[in-house]
Amino acid sequence: MRVYNFSAGPAMLPQPVLEQARDDMLDWDGSGMSVMEVSHRGKAFVACAAQAEARMRAVLGVPDNYRVLFLQGGAFGQFAAIPLNLAQAGRPVEFLNTGQWSAKAIAEARRYAPVNVIADEAASKYTRVPASDSFAVDPQAAYLHYTPNETIGGVEFGYVPEVGQVPLVADFSSTILSRPIDVSQYGLIYAGAQKNMGPAGLCVVVVRDDLLGQARPETPSVWDYAKMAKNDSMLNTPPTFGIYLLGLVLQWIADSGGLEAMGERNRAKAETLYSFIDESPFYSNPVAPDSRSWMNVPFLVADADLERTFVSEATAAGLTNLAGHRSVGGMRASIYNAMPIEGVHALINFMKQVERTHG
Amino acid sequence: MRVYNFSAGPAMLPQPVLEQARDDMLDWDGSGMSVMEVSHRGKAFVACAAQAEARMRAVLGVPDNYRVLFLQGGAFGQFAAIPLNLAQAGRPVEFLNTGQWSAKAIAEARRYAPVNVIADEAASKYTRVPASDSFAVDPQAAYLHYTPNETIGGVEFGYVPEVGQVPLVADFSSTILSRPIDVSQYGLIYAGAQKNMGPAGLCVVVVRDDLLGQARPETPSVWDYAKMAKNDSMLNTPPTFGIYLLGLVLQWIADSGGLEAMGERNRAKAETLYSFIDESPFYSNPVAPDSRSWMNVPFLVADADLERTFVSEATAAGLTNLAGHRSVGGMRASIYNAMPIEGVHALINFMKQVERTHG
Repeated sequence: MRVYNFSAGPAMLPQPVLEQARDDMLDWDGSGMSVMEVSHRGKAFVACAAQAEARMRAVLGVPDNYRVLFLQGGAFGQFAAIPLNLAQAGRPVEFLNTGQWSAKAIAEARRYAPVNVIADEAASKYTRVPASDSFAVDPQAAYLHYTPNETIGGVEFGYVPEVGQVPLVADFSSTILSRPIDVSQYGLIYAGAQKNMGPAGLCVVVVRDDLLGQARPETPSVWDYAKMAKNDSMLNTPPTFGIYLLGLVLQWIADSGGLEAMGERNRAKAETLYSFIDESPFYSNPVAPDSRSWMNVPFLVADADLERTFVSEATAAGLTNLAGHRSVGGMRASIYNAMPIEGVHALINFMKQVERTHG
Repeated sequence: MRVYNFSAGPAMLPQPVLEQARDDMLDWDGSGMSVMEVSHRGKAFVACAAQAEARMRAVLGVPDNYRVLFLQGGAFGQFAAIPLNLAQAGRPVEFLNTGQWSAKAIAEARRYAPVNVIADEAASKYTRVPASDSFAVDPQAAYLHYTPNETIGGVEFGYVPEVGQVPLVADFSSTILSRPIDVSQYGLIYAGAQKNMGPAGLCVVVVRDDLLGQARPETPSVWDYAKMAKNDSMLNTPPTFGIYLLGLVLQWIADSGGLEAMGERNRAKAETLYSFIDESPFYSNPVAPDSRSWMNVPFLVADADLERTFVSEATAAGLTNLAGHRSVGGMRASIYNAMPIEGVHALINFMKQVERTHG
């Protein structure tokens, strides 16, 4: 029996996608082989990868002057690959620090380039994003990096930072494909697949053409954007099963009405859950209302001793992975694209029941 | 209907493994979730990864003073990661060049360290491995790198190079788990999963303890062996589905009699196919008999114009992916662990039929 899985990532996948993967497992598209068993350079898989890219371009609205790359090493790998590809001698790279993922990206970037953190929400304990007029980017910066959504704190930007001509770089791992964005506002966006796109092990990079070709000599070839772009992401063997699944997920999004419809669904799911929490004296969410994530909803119970009971009883009720991140405790409901509104309703009903029993 | 798939990689997987993956797809181990949907830090997946590592240690015979790492970026990523982790200032790294994969590893290493190629089979057109007494390793070398099996040329070492105290580093991508090896003879072995271990996107590194902790400051964290060892390969999100499948493949090997039995099967498959080729006036294999690969068998037909016909008629007969590598032409049958002897017999019967028709 399928459960409602609130994992922050790897996370719930659309059931029709899993059913297709199951049905294709021994005989993909009449080939007599799994998609995992075919050469990445054969016609069938080259077409599969091209279709995944075409669907990504259509669904996300990727302009023609951007390349879509399918890489390995996760977003954490890109924390190194981005400065290796984009940092310029004598110019700083700048960051907004809004949580643990920003902080990890900053720590890794410092090993390759001088870093300026021009807005830092550590003092607010990462309970909000900085106001849009509270920081200014150095026009000489090689790029500004930010994290549009922080999975642990549950904060999300409601605006796109103003950067002038400086390339804007964004770690979209936990919010990509959750609502429409204007790709042309970014120099580079990247995202690990394991939240809204597919299985762990695939990282998608969307990068503007003019940022290619500046990689430092010591950049590993499999992370050199220009080399990977030239080789259609197949300088080496790509994570073929992940690319295949991404194609299925994108088709599911397109069939579900695209990012406009996905955004409306996600807005409704988030508003429903935050409204319930705000109206309850028993539950609370620490995040400033204008900074709340649509994807990751951390919440506390009035009595912290109840947290373990909450999580274990929820699991027994078919609502899994509700424990907060180990570094912050509490609870967290991650409600990515694949979580239906029915899952949110089931969670709220369960929360009401806990409140009645223990409140 | 399943076919006999002779792809060089990604390659055929054992059918029982694919059946298990199919059956687990929507509900892994009674969890109500796919293994792809669960947190890598949750108890269930941590146990799954630990089991895969334990099986790898048992099947391959990994001594206690070696770490088993599950990384991303493929063997090509390791072409950079190895010099970043192991090269030492003022000391050369040395290579044996036996084919296109050695050559790629050499080209990438040159970007990080001074490289000496101490044996080079380019002159033989990569039709043999160097004689064991034809090269000598500099005792000051940081390591000697070689490629025990070359998928394109179809050459394989029948011996382990003598290195004294110099760490021996080996790209086992296309021969790992195909027969017993003595891990203690190596400083580091690594292998992309997509030939004998599982899906593309997982790279296994087995490294001796004393080689950890020497990474250069600019080593990307996700490829820093010491950091990854300290974090049980979960500094970042690992390729969870690949690790799960690796565990299933290892269980299948153990159930099939382990590497001794696997080696006997692979020897029999290879000897059967090479014997047929050698006895036929119509087919030929260019590799010196003592250097022939058990995994990748390139062959030519007397009339090169027949190659396309051969490949297309083979595909129609359920024998797929028999075209040689695009850089060398001809045909190639890759007969990894998952290829049963029946597949080799079917191939030989088909080859006889082509010879009767066109010979």
